[in-house]
Amino acid sequence: MLPVDLPDAVRDALLAPLVDHHCHGVRRDDLSRAQFELLIGESRTPAPPGTTHFDTPLGAAIRRWCAPVLGLEPHVAPAVYLGRRQELGAGEVNRRLLQASGVVAFLVDTGLEAPDLLSAAEMGRHGGAAADEIVRLEQVEQDIADSAAVAVDYMDSLGEELVARAARAVGLKSIIAYRCGLDFDPSRPSRGSVIAAANRRLSDPRERLVDPILLRHLLWTAVDVARDRALPIQFHTGYGDADLDMSRADPAQMTGFIRALQPLGIPVVLLHCYPFHRQAAYLASVFPHVYVDVGLTLTHTAAGSARILDELLELVPFHKQLFSSDCYGLAEGCHLGAVYFRLGMAGALGRRVESGEWSAADAARVAHMAGSGNARRVYRL
Amino acid sequence: MLPVDLPDAVRDALLAPLVDHHCHGVRRDDLSRAQFELLIGESRTPAPPGTTHFDTPLGAAIRRWCAPVLGLEPHVAPAVYLGRRQELGAGEVNRRLLQASGVVAFLVDTGLEAPDLLSAAEMGRHGGAAADEIVRLEQVEQDIADSAAVAVDYMDSLGEELVARAARAVGLKSIIAYRCGLDFDPSRPSRGSVIAAANRRLSDPRERLVDPILLRHLLWTAVDVARDRALPIQFHTGYGDADLDMSRADPAQMTGFIRALQPLGIPVVLLHCYPFHRQAAYLASVFPHVYVDVGLTLTHTAAGSARILDELLELVPFHKQLFSSDCYGLAEGCHLGAVYFRLGMAGALGRRVESGEWSAADAARVAHMAGSGNARRVYRL
Amino acid sequence: MLPVDLPDAVRDALLAPLVDHHCHGVRRDDLSRAQFELLIGESRTPAPPGTTHFDTPLGAAIRRWCAPVLGLEPHVAPAVYLGRRQELGAGEVNRRLLQASGVVAFLVDTGLEAPDLLSAAEMGRHGGAAADEIVRLEQVEQDIADSAAVAVDYMDSLGEELVARAARAVGLKSIIAYRCGLDFDPSRPSRGSVIAAANRRLSDPRERLVDPILLRHLLWTAVDVARDRALPIQFHTGYGDADLDMSRADPAQMTGFIRALQPLGIPVVLLHCYPFHRQAAYLASVFPHVYVDVGLTLTHTAAGSARILDELLELVPFHKQLFSSDCYGLAEGCHLGAVYFRLGMAGALGRRVESGEWSAADAARVAHMAGSGNARRVYRL
Repeated sequence: MLPVDLPDAVRDALLAPLVDHHCHGVRRDDLSRAQFELLIGESRTPAPPGTTHFDTPLGAAIRRWCAPVLGLEPHVAPAVYLGRRQELGAGEVNRRLLQASGVVAFLVDTGLEAPDLLSAAEMGRHGGAAADEIVRLEQVEQDIADSAAVAVDYMDSLGEELVARAARAVGLKSIIAYRCGLDFDPSRPSRGSVIAAANRRLSDPRERLVDPILLRHLLWTAVDVARDRALPIQFHTGYGDADLDMSRADPAQMTGFIRALQPLGIPVVLLHCYPFHRQAAYLASVFPHVYVDVGLTLTHTAAGSARILDELLELVPFHKQLFSSDCYGLAEGCHLGAVYFRLGMAGALGRRVESGEWSAADAARVAHMAGSGNARRVYRL
Repeated sequence: MLPVDLPDAVRDALLAPLVDHHCHGVRRDDLSRAQFELLIGESRTPAPPGTTHFDTPLGAAIRRWCAPVLGLEPHVAPAVYLGRRQELGAGEVNRRLLQASGVVAFLVDTGLEAPDLLSAAEMGRHGGAAADEIVRLEQVEQDIADSAAVAVDYMDSLGEELVARAARAVGLKSIIAYRCGLDFDPSRPSRGSVIAAANRRLSDPRERLVDPILLRHLLWTAVDVARDRALPIQFHTGYGDADLDMSRADPAQMTGFIRALQPLGIPVVLLHCYPFHRQAAYLASVFPHVYVDVGLTLTHTAAGSARILDELLELVPFHKQLFSSDCYGLAEGCHLGAVYFRLGMAGALGRRVESGEWSAADAARVAHMAGSGNARRVYRL
Repeated sequence: MLPVDLPDAVRDALLAPLVDHHCHGVRRDDLSRAQFELLIGESRTPAPPGTTHFDTPLGAAIRRWCAPVLGLEPHVAPAVYLGRRQELGAGEVNRRLLQASGVVAFLVDTGLEAPDLLSAAEMGRHGGAAADEIVRLEQVEQDIADSAAVAVDYMDSLGEELVARAARAVGLKSIIAYRCGLDFDPSRPSRGSVIAAANRRLSDPRERLVDPILLRHLLWTAVDVARDRALPIQFHTGYGDADLDMSRADPAQMTGFIRALQPLGIPVVLLHCYPFHRQAAYLASVFPHVYVDVGLTLTHTAAGSARILDELLELVPFHKQLFSSDCYGLAEGCHLGAVYFRLGMAGALGRRVESGEWSAADAARVAHMAGSGNARRVYRL
């Protein structure tokens, strides 16, 4: 898979096991073509009439890289691929693809848990890997909102539940980018404003939380927990689905909040970031507690992903880059994330060694840090 | 022109006729050096003393690619090029360059029509191609504002005129990016607010329309027409001239409006997009009704244009990419748009085939879709 | 250093002396490892425990390109490099690195002057080059705020001091991007509002100026001076240190101000710009008085810098691009800025010549303009 002229030390470092510091469960059941297509890409809608989601960079990548894992030739037609998937059954497909990824530890965002998705522990078992949990803040909040009767309950229960959930987890995750954008007021909201907002919230708790006051309250409650337990907080930034307003998902918009967290020593992990990955690398370069990863971007940009890793490497300190697949639903996402991370890094590092910019030993060291070393240090695995 | 090692199927698909889904008329008259220079680039001002607009990527590209079409060596001096242009005469120059582009159908934005520009029909005749019309909304509004007496007339006439114009056209076009930026309120303005704004407008109708209420009213009136006739609406986004505020031309800023149009099934076509083409590709990937094209960006970035197509291809679904030259004034723009589209796609597709990421058949199919197939489907040509 | 297949004319033009139109003084004293590390990158904080700022693109570049200038092999360990630096002494190190850069004239922003930094004149002497001054507006304002008693004094003294300082300088510089962001109101503030703001300011003059009214007053006072003396005004935009809010440092956000300056004929020079260098190139392409340079970006992105120059070249007119190292503290920054400018331009120009896009003569001419010719014209050196 990797270029033949890559120095051995770099090749070995890139083929070493990866820590996937951000992923979700994959579907345990056999999928129809319609179900499978809905999980290609982030549109969550069927492709327009006469078109198919296989006609995307990700769709082409599935046919190129996942077909051989299922015992097929590269580039087989979608129907052939899906037929083979059916033939093998979801369990075998998941085991093959998760194990092909060479991931040694999954950190699973359990906020999307559902009966038809593998749990964190199952992801580990199917993938032959360790598995740990990342707690999604907005999911915890939704649970509390569903059960709390009054505002004070809501606030107390939220804190207690976050403490309890964090005790079993290796990190927290915020999707505030989706809910009110990253240009939120970085200050901790006053207790009075939170009580008023919580009372409004509890009058219709089934609604998805979008109130900036409660979102900021949730985040600052999480900060207290993270500080006590030295947990990193992951932030969705940049690339995501149609619920996002991309013009409010630039991580640089939360510079004030990042600055407020600096004295607390809480690692801030920026996920995905595209097309703001250069801004993210800048933040990682000037703030000692900021880490960065282009996550699901690599899987979805596929044949075009190498440039994005290249752009991240322009400025990111070597001890600040992480790897994740952000797979969700399809085990294909896990394998492809690993494939394109390795291919992209091989290209970037290989060129640096070939041009004499870096020694092979340095390149190998950087590959190791980005692939697993940094994640082990940040999440204390 | 294309790389020698490109697979035949891909080469054939790239050299096949193009549909130029967005262009303007070119000048019918012979141009002085000063006139010609003003049409190189988007500054619309003479180059600073001691400099020339030929010293730009576009200027170099004219000397490289258009000189041979006029029977000259590549890289001739500007004066030689302009001398030859004079010698051949504007008619012959236009015919040679438009036909060299290999465009089989021009969709002409007639909003800039003027006696010294070829009409849509003439663009077709000179280029040996079909020609259809794209109606520029702000031009229709200006005509109505010039003639309406009172607000109710203005509103009624606007709707009637748009219906009449749309009946002869294959699409509509908005330049709201230029007038109030793409971060406009996505909701339909109330009738009361429109009447009040129209009355203000009619007190000074010669002014260029910049009132966000009337611009939104214009857009929503167009939405009604587009829905009835299943017409796409094109939006200028990103790269343009000095009238633009680039920080308000990011298509992601109109996500709310795009979302509002999704249930109506109206195709939204994002033009130019640079440097927000990644945001545009993201929108095309998550919204089923969004299409994208880097348009005049290729012509103006010229020798550097391949990277921009590469970046667009990172995320754009294959059935969502379109081609346009956005030529205006100079037929050179049409030829160069086609040249750099073919060169850039050849590079991107060739690398994918060579690295084994895509099959040659897939690459050829993508070339065909982007070059003409998608436009034929979207505009129902 | 440059590719062997580069045409001789292009090579000669790239190796010709450079004008470094924006830099700062470098440290005159011997530096401990802790001191040296603080000057790698823009974080101004020690690297997190267990990590080092040498593990950055800039750190790797120092080992690659500066080690040989000090008589070491490329890629030596940081400790070896710093040991050699100590052995040679700061004076010798500075002379070697500044002279290795091949810079013939330094334009020094003296706003950060301190006893342990070389002055502008010393930069020239150590580097075997000419040296001129760029006046940092916010530094002048701070001096005036420290000494003025009342608002009218403040305003009068500010104008007089700027006139006096400008008389000895070749340009002015604003860091308003750091203080209130580039999305400031472009209009000149009223005299009344300035007096009120100045009175507030004088009650606590040691504070860093962040009041938008006084920052705009400072800028407009500078505009008057610049117009009288035909001086360019440099603006920090994009990439900088942790004091910056990157989401408010996009030069396109100051389009209104740029437009206001157009009739005055004052050159506006955009510095650094990353990751908004495409926006900057666009501004330089549509406004006749805008110039652009990616400055310290090249030094800090190092092995990844070529792409950034490539992206700048997509749209920047040849007579609008400048070179600077923006070195500060470490003479390494000056050498690396020159190395990566030459390498990046060699790659970009070499590819254009090889593919037949540009003639070698044109490429050589562009290299000359960007390396020194444009700066000589704009700053009237």
